[in-house]
Amino acid sequence: MKIELLREDLLYAVNAVERAVSTKNTLPVLSGIMISAHGNQLSFRATDLEIAIECVINAAIEEEGELVAPGRKLSALAKGLGSGPLTLESVGQEQLLIKYDRGQISMPCYTTEEFPLLPPREGDIQGTIPVRVFKRMVRQTGIAASADELRPVFTGIMLELDGDNITMVATDTHRLAVSNDTWQGQGKATVIVPNKVMQEIARLANNDDDNIIITVSKSQIFFSFANLSVTSRLIVGQFPDYHQVLPDQELFRSFLTISRLRMIESLELASVISREIARGKGNIVRLRLDEHSVNIYSSSPDDGTFDENQEAVISGEPMTLNYNARYLLDALRVMDDDQVTFSLTGPTTPGIIAAAADDEEAAAEKENKYLYLVLPVRVSK
Amino acid sequence: MKIELLREDLLYAVNAVERAVSTKNTLPVLSGIMISAHGNQLSFRATDLEIAIECVINAAIEEEGELVAPGRKLSALAKGLGSGPLTLESVGQEQLLIKYDRGQISMPCYTTEEFPLLPPREGDIQGTIPVRVFKRMVRQTGIAASADELRPVFTGIMLELDGDNITMVATDTHRLAVSNDTWQGQGKATVIVPNKVMQEIARLANNDDDNIIITVSKSQIFFSFANLSVTSRLIVGQFPDYHQVLPDQELFRSFLTISRLRMIESLELASVISREIARGKGNIVRLRLDEHSVNIYSSSPDDGTFDENQEAVISGEPMTLNYNARYLLDALRVMDDDQVTFSLTGPTTPGIIAAAADDEEAAAEKENKYLYLVLPVRVSK
Repeated sequence: MKIELLREDLLYAVNAVERAVSTKNTLPVLSGIMISAHGNQLSFRATDLEIAIECVINAAIEEEGELVAPGRKLSALAKGLGSGPLTLESVGQEQLLIKYDRGQISMPCYTTEEFPLLPPREGDIQGTIPVRVFKRMVRQTGIAASADELRPVFTGIMLELDGDNITMVATDTHRLAVSNDTWQGQGKATVIVPNKVMQEIARLANNDDDNIIITVSKSQIFFSFANLSVTSRLIVGQFPDYHQVLPDQELFRSFLTISRLRMIESLELASVISREIARGKGNIVRLRLDEHSVNIYSSSPDDGTFDENQEAVISGEPMTLNYNARYLLDALRVMDDDQVTFSLTGPTTPGIIAAAADDEEAAAEKENKYLYLVLPVRVSK
Repeated sequence: MKIELLREDLLYAVNAVERAVSTKNTLPVLSGIMISAHGNQLSFRATDLEIAIECVINAAIEEEGELVAPGRKLSALAKGLGSGPLTLESVGQEQLLIKYDRGQISMPCYTTEEFPLLPPREGDIQGTIPVRVFKRMVRQTGIAASADELRPVFTGIMLELDGDNITMVATDTHRLAVSNDTWQGQGKATVIVPNKVMQEIARLANNDDDNIIITVSKSQIFFSFANLSVTSRLIVGQFPDYHQVLPDQELFRSFLTISRLRMIESLELASVISREIARGKGNIVRLRLDEHSVNIYSSSPDDGTFDENQEAVISGEPMTLNYNARYLLDALRVMDDDQVTFSLTGPTTPGIIAAAADDEEAAAEKENKYLYLVLPVRVSK
């Protein structure tokens, strides 16, 4: 293998695939980046068996071939090499030689035979979604996914594809986030994709005006955009039926509409002074719905009290609820709306946070719908 | 105590003194910030007994008094409170009440009697130094100070004041940095100030056009600038005589003059591929002085080799030296000069890095002199 390329291109490709380089030592070859040169295309590939990322760039290929270079090292070098042309050359399969104007770097390589093959990108269900929309949906649902690997289903984002409808849902059983939009799609599928993979794609897709092509097969999902392809395994398991979890309209007893940014400010302050409830329930804040305002309150015997009133539009019954402040903040921070409405069924039963009715009309135009269901915390007296 | 002030002013004062709030739990009151209101001056003060920071601002004082509020909590709240007026009020000595348009926050306080008094700011040796000069000197010497608390003298920066001359020196016994400049001073003193304190002052003094007044007493040193006063204990002990450590002119056998930024690039790359020597000696790189270039080389059986030639102006004997790459990088990164000269006495004896002769002339005008002495590493074959 012998290739000439620009250092900037090497840096771009290595940066793109780097996150898929395995950090575990179980299979050493997975800490490598596979470089293949064929025709006039140079491919960089890394996988930790959960996610695989491939980046294909154009390069002057003098001699075809492939090798697996040590990932972290190649990445650190690519960052430091500055700009200008360089040559990547294999010495047998055992060594990569990087030559540039002022010198050369050699590094030992892994055996290419040991590097896993990527599954072919094929599947009946396919569609195209603007990067901007994809990123919003992932941001809005990812917050509700769990990090607990013991219950794999909850570490994923459920992707529901149905004709020109795309829905993402995530839950850690304390809260549930649903984001819905339209896309140019065909076919019907419901799959669970690791939240980590979805976040990684959102990070890699940095051109908001670009599109992402999503292809779903039996056990894999493929994402293509720019010169990148990302393959992910699917999570096997039964995701809760979110339609059943959402309360029926007639159960709502109170509605609180408030400035989203002001509510964020209050909850952040309330979190500083707050009662730490045992068993990791986090910072508890109390919301009391008065006639024209909501009272936000938190207290702790050691840390004092926080007591604030925010103007709000309130209808329905007076109600007092306790929440984990972080669960509210997570949702409020990923929404775009100026005004949000809490639709409440009672002090111990689920409520829903969504765009306020006024914003909903505006939202109707942008087609994105977002719902965040959250359970109040029972506070022992 | 009852004071009206702007939230921005509270944030400014709390931010300034926050770093002196103790993070240890040995004496609880030291995790507090002392607030004193007298006349029309409001003082915020914190100390961990090594450093004390006081910030004095103007405020509308309705009722004089003082209290010690919990530091971290006050700081977190000040950050979240946004802008606008607020009232600080004491409820006895036990509680601080913060009132603002939308609500109020209360927090328990410490007893003011337990908070240590600050020593009076007096001393015979005094002078004034521009913030810009002070920060450069601290940046250039702090890199050579040790973090090893077992040898306190080496964790400090030695400050040598002699009439209108100010010199800072630091060493961890592997390298030694000397920065010298002029200041408007009188008297003669040699003291050792904790590097941590010097870094903190450099961080707090954010207006480069301001001046710092330094006052030295028997056991304390005082720094005043803007509306801040910083008091620090001095480190007791014997600092090595740096004049004795610097090699005599006739010992220099080779001189290497090179672009500072290019050398940084090379050393960073060489550090990626390098031989880890046991006992924490770090990344070893080899410099070989050829006729018109310097060869920078590092290797490791597992990680490959790095081999680069940089154009350089070289005089004297050919020489090959091994260095801890970090020791060279530390110095090169804090210098301002385009070209630097390594003056070398031999492959196992100290060398000096300083501005190149051409730059030295330019440097003469700005009056700052910088020398960095570094020992090559003995590499066992």
